[in-house]
Amino acid sequence: MKLQLALDTLSLDVSIELLDKIVEDLDIIEVGTPFIIEDGLLPVRTFKARYPDSVVLADVKIMDAGYYEAEKCFKAGADIVTVLGAAHDETISGAVQAAKEYDGKVMVDLINVADLTERALQVEKLGVDYCCVHTAFDVQSATVNPLAELELILKVLSPAKVAVAGGLKLNTIPKVVSLGAEIVVVGGGIINQSDPVKATKEIKDIIKHG
Amino acid sequence: MKLQLALDTLSLDVSIELLDKIVEDLDIIEVGTPFIIEDGLLPVRTFKARYPDSVVLADVKIMDAGYYEAEKCFKAGADIVTVLGAAHDETISGAVQAAKEYDGKVMVDLINVADLTERALQVEKLGVDYCCVHTAFDVQSATVNPLAELELILKVLSPAKVAVAGGLKLNTIPKVVSLGAEIVVVGGGIINQSDPVKATKEIKDIIKHG
Repeated sequence: MKLQLALDTLSLDVSIELLDKIVEDLDIIEVGTPFIIEDGLLPVRTFKARYPDSVVLADVKIMDAGYYEAEKCFKAGADIVTVLGAAHDETISGAVQAAKEYDGKVMVDLINVADLTERALQVEKLGVDYCCVHTAFDVQSATVNPLAELELILKVLSPAKVAVAGGLKLNTIPKVVSLGAEIVVVGGGIINQSDPVKATKEIKDIIKHG
Repeated sequence: MKLQLALDTLSLDVSIELLDKIVEDLDIIEVGTPFIIEDGLLPVRTFKARYPDSVVLADVKIMDAGYYEAEKCFKAGADIVTVLGAAHDETISGAVQAAKEYDGKVMVDLINVADLTERALQVEKLGVDYCCVHTAFDVQSATVNPLAELELILKVLSPAKVAVAGGLKLNTIPKVVSLGAEIVVVGGGIINQSDPVKATKEIKDIIKHG
């Protein structure tokens, strides 16, 4: 299981300050959507140059122009780009085509799709690398989290194809580990903790040792 | 009827060179999604500073964190932000709340929603300013364009609430004018023409005089 850190709210300077301390414990560095909105692909270029051995994900949530937007991200150094499950099949296929040409990967974000398992099976056939169950920030609460959706998608997809995101924290990670997934995405569960370095190590330890 | 120019593929320098020549004929300058992916909110800040009397739209296609992402755009000087119709109601409401606080507007992009008129009526109730029927770039062809969706949405919404986008060109604009809409979005129909300044004036003329 891989640990993906979502950087959504920190500036580039503060992100680097944190990453310098924890990058060895991370498997994937995510440039989150608000970070892209703020700074474009600059953080992707910066992280790839500074941490060349790390996998960098551009969370651009592509909804249209799949090839064009994915290509832009891969050219900037992204290893993985995200496309929305809510997008047309043609858009997802365009991103997959760009991934093939640039030796990158595509993660489909299934946030708010009407039928989770049906859409997961459809997009898997389009050749995507990962399907991410994702409880939107705007609907998260103490009781609403992506664990139920994780259980659901694991009925139709292999854990090797599955990522999970949406408010995951130290206390919910053990359940993710027991269910199984290829990638667990943590944002506030690290960034918003009083000691993000300690939180990273604790979460990494759970992922490593169950 | 207002003319919105979508800037998707030009660099910031080339965009400014073009805008300096045609800004008087535009009602809304759109910083398109690929432009945001490339440069973040820099084009929004730059256009608002250089053309303070123009309306600037940030086509961020928000899918989550509606308040947070919309606020970021309004703070950078955007007058209008886009949110996906495929997003949760809570996300759209968050963007509407940010718009109220920053005296901005929200356009919902109805690209690839399952039931166009049903979703248009739902999001109108959430207090959005415009609903945009939008044929995705990835599915556009000579025969697939947003005119059929425009006819459909005008059965349930007033033209004053409607925007239309997706491959519109000189030859399809007259039909938009006859059907009615508040905002017509043109991208390649201007940018990709041999003489973009002339194309802008021709389209503006049709919009003005029908």
